Amino acid sequence: MKFSKCPLMVIGTVAIDSIETPYGKQGEVFGGSASYFSYAASFFSPVELVAVVGKDFPEDYRNILSERPIGLGHLSVHPKGETFRWQGQYKSDLNVAHTIDTKLNVLLDFKPKINPDVKPEILFLANIDPALQTEVLNQVHRSHCELVACDTMNFWITNKKKELIDVLKRVDLLVINDGEARELTGEYNLIKAARAIQANGPNAVVIKKGEHGVLLFFENQMFVLPAYPLEEVFDPTGAGDSFAGGMMGYLAHIKQFNFDVLRRAVAYGTIVASFTVERFGLDRLREISKEDIEERLKIFKSLTHVDA
Amino acid sequence: MKFSKCPLMVIGTVAIDSIETPYGKQGEVFGGSASYFSYAASFFSPVELVAVVGKDFPEDYRNILSERPIGLGHLSVHPKGETFRWQGQYKSDLNVAHTIDTKLNVLLDFKPKINPDVKPEILFLANIDPALQTEVLNQVHRSHCELVACDTMNFWITNKKKELIDVLKRVDLLVINDGEARELTGEYNLIKAARAIQANGPNAVVIKKGEHGVLLFFENQMFVLPAYPLEEVFDPTGAGDSFAGGMMGYLAHIKQFNFDVLRRAVAYGTIVASFTVERFGLDRLREISKEDIEERLKIFKSLTHVDA
Repeated sequence: MKFSKCPLMVIGTVAIDSIETPYGKQGEVFGGSASYFSYAASFFSPVELVAVVGKDFPEDYRNILSERPIGLGHLSVHPKGETFRWQGQYKSDLNVAHTIDTKLNVLLDFKPKINPDVKPEILFLANIDPALQTEVLNQVHRSHCELVACDTMNFWITNKKKELIDVLKRVDLLVINDGEARELTGEYNLIKAARAIQANGPNAVVIKKGEHGVLLFFENQMFVLPAYPLEEVFDPTGAGDSFAGGMMGYLAHIKQFNFDVLRRAVAYGTIVASFTVERFGLDRLREISKEDIEERLKIFKSLTHVDA
Repeated sequence: MKFSKCPLMVIGTVAIDSIETPYGKQGEVFGGSASYFSYAASFFSPVELVAVVGKDFPEDYRNILSERPIGLGHLSVHPKGETFRWQGQYKSDLNVAHTIDTKLNVLLDFKPKINPDVKPEILFLANIDPALQTEVLNQVHRSHCELVACDTMNFWITNKKKELIDVLKRVDLLVINDGEARELTGEYNLIKAARAIQANGPNAVVIKKGEHGVLLFFENQMFVLPAYPLEEVFDPTGAGDSFAGGMMGYLAHIKQFNFDVLRRAVAYGTIVASFTVERFGLDRLREISKEDIEERLKIFKSLTHVDA
């Protein structure tokens, strides 16, 4: 398996969020699935971001992405519309996001156009309308692209299930949370849910359980990992997206896709996500280095190692 | 640390349960916290059971306990009363037991009397009224007893908090589930909850999260372990008690109490509990051997090992 040029591309949302958690409240937080993903992935690999923003998108936010090896050639700016906005709240159970308001704005008529000269080796379809995931999939030649992975959310499972299932048939890896896996398959048990998903598409499935960790299914193999235990989860927004970013960034770096590499990728994703939730938005990720990630991974291994 | 004679004693309930799960329904299931605990512990160490049953207690159930190195000299039989009965139901979320009916029966006037010649080296106060836990604690000389551990449930936290807190001040290790730890301390975050418990008594705290695994806190150290992933959890009744039994049985076998031994004990508890939930009551534990436990522990280690 050889990679070149564009090791990792992500299509997803770039958003301006308003977030309330038990620890505080903040408006105008830079967010979105593709933003968290890209920033997290950039610790491991260059990443090309495919998304749309409105004319109101702050220069400061663009500069945040420019701090890192994140290609912005596919970040289109809508001349008139406003950036996608999400307003959410978390109560004591930080695993559950309560959406207060969503303004799709420029997402409504987003038509991603991939420059045919940019050939991603790994493509990640972050949480966004399956119709947009499909449009990008159709423009990326599978002959150049070694691995396609995707994420989704309950809104699309409920409202665009057919389109989503068509996407799943074309991907190698699905990243999904526990509730969504149950909703998608009708199976409460997560092992059964993963098997049902594998039967209809991706041979790798990662089920995220928030503070309870993650399950990885690869062909007929399984891997179980707790989350990194934190005394204070300040803002869980973006945890899943930065988990996926860390995981996919590591895969793009290693340029191999097998069970052992995936296990390590899941561990890296876990660690990156554990930093994300320590502050609002991308604030914490902006403070850390690759060395901080390695250091915490080392602690994590000692916290979870069974030596019986 | 030297052990002799009675390596492990447990006070708790012996019950006759009626259980309904998504997989089936069964009445007259042999249960109770001390029954599950003793049977699980007996794979590792002899155990002395302190409990009461009624005149209706079936000879068959006594024979089940007699299959194993479980001392029944402290299993008193009430001449007139009926055995404690619990009726419960589990829906799709098998982590939550819905109590339909509880008949305390002979538990109501149970006065445990410990033979002063039986000196336990480890004492486990399984889930039962804190007043009864205290009575046993008062009869066991701490000079002979190297380790006291206890379990409890939300009912006692709500209704006998003061008595429970007095017990906690006298124990070395508390085994408790996540919801109970939150209720007991008022802390939602489980690391903070554990620290709050440690500040008022036991220097070791094990927080059970059901299918999401377990957190161990020992002095200022922490250990995190997922549950053994099962495709079918048939009946979760007794999972927590047999987890504690496996853990304490292992400690009684090793006769040491430090962080490394505790980590291994928690892993053994996890494995024993994973067998318990595969069938109703003690049915599955009665089928397995120590070798099956070792074999599954080996698989579990490979399922959870991070090699990054």
